Amino acid sequence: MRASLISPETAVTISMYQTSVPRFASMLRNLSAILDKAQAHAEARKIDPAVLTNLRLYPDMLPMKRQVQIACDSAKSVVARLADVEVPKHEDTEETFADLKARIAKTIDFIQTVKPAQVDGTEEKNIHLKLGSREVDYKGMQYLLGHALPNFYFHVATAYDILRHNGVEIGKRDFLGNP
Amino acid sequence: MRASLISPETAVTISMYQTSVPRFASMLRNLSAILDKAQAHAEARKIDPAVLTNLRLYPDMLPMKRQVQIACDSAKSVVARLADVEVPKHEDTEETFADLKARIAKTIDFIQTVKPAQVDGTEEKNIHLKLGSREVDYKGMQYLLGHALPNFYFHVATAYDILRHNGVEIGKRDFLGNP
Repeated sequence: MRASLISPETAVTISMYQTSVPRFASMLRNLSAILDKAQAHAEARKIDPAVLTNLRLYPDMLPMKRQVQIACDSAKSVVARLADVEVPKHEDTEETFADLKARIAKTIDFIQTVKPAQVDGTEEKNIHLKLGSREVDYKGMQYLLGHALPNFYFHVATAYDILRHNGVEIGKRDFLGNP
Repeated sequence: MRASLISPETAVTISMYQTSVPRFASMLRNLSAILDKAQAHAEARKIDPAVLTNLRLYPDMLPMKRQVQIACDSAKSVVARLADVEVPKHEDTEETFADLKARIAKTIDFIQTVKPAQVDGTEEKNIHLKLGSREVDYKGMQYLLGHALPNFYFHVATAYDILRHNGVEIGKRDFLGNP
């Protein structure tokens, strides 16, 4: 079995683009497939899908649907900010699995409009963020590696964990995809 | 508040090293601090710590202690394989929070013995893995970005989610650290 996540023609050198757009797109496709399994699980057991999308691991923790929304936002925000294009606004109105899959699809569509040349070389780019009451200054590489990627993976893994905890039959291979 | 995850002197260009060793070390330190909070939680409520380290989100999912062990193994393995040094063997004998923190500490110590020059430029290095019955061939960058990093974050986030689900008072800031 030969791995084929990144085509050999483009895989020569690690870059800001290689570390962001293709990685986010790949994980978001995996998340979308996980939602398919969750929907099939709900249908087979006649569970209202909105029960699953609103499940939480703890009362003051965000529900599954918000984990998906924030994962999408984390991906689109860092890609847009590095590329110096406007971050597209996506309202958080999703309730069903189909809604969440559409949110994921439009996130993938957006980040794939950004070309490597727009993201590569942004290691030292100044990124100023207002996070609620806090303001944070990052350099591009620090923002991508130290904030955006861990934040993205946190929410994808937590969406997975919520579904797994509630009996959806998924395994780590669904999370990692098939590299 | 100014971010300071990566010192400006070394942050100029993304590289295989920058994307691996400092990121793994930073997240493992965050995980160690999360275990401190879990231990304090157990002590305050007179819960046997082994109850918390053995908790699972589902009967056929690995317990919290295994999530920590596998996160450590994921970090040490990719760093060692990229650098062409032997992967250190760490037996999975941990039961207490102190044990798990020691496992994390020795993982950080090991990966920090590896120098940037040993890891940089390994994007195209051939990595052959036996994963149970499967054999997988990766290139270095693909192995790091497409397998090792998502796998690492998966286990750190799942350790966090297990503790969070069981009432330990932690938030995403504990996971992300203080960038």
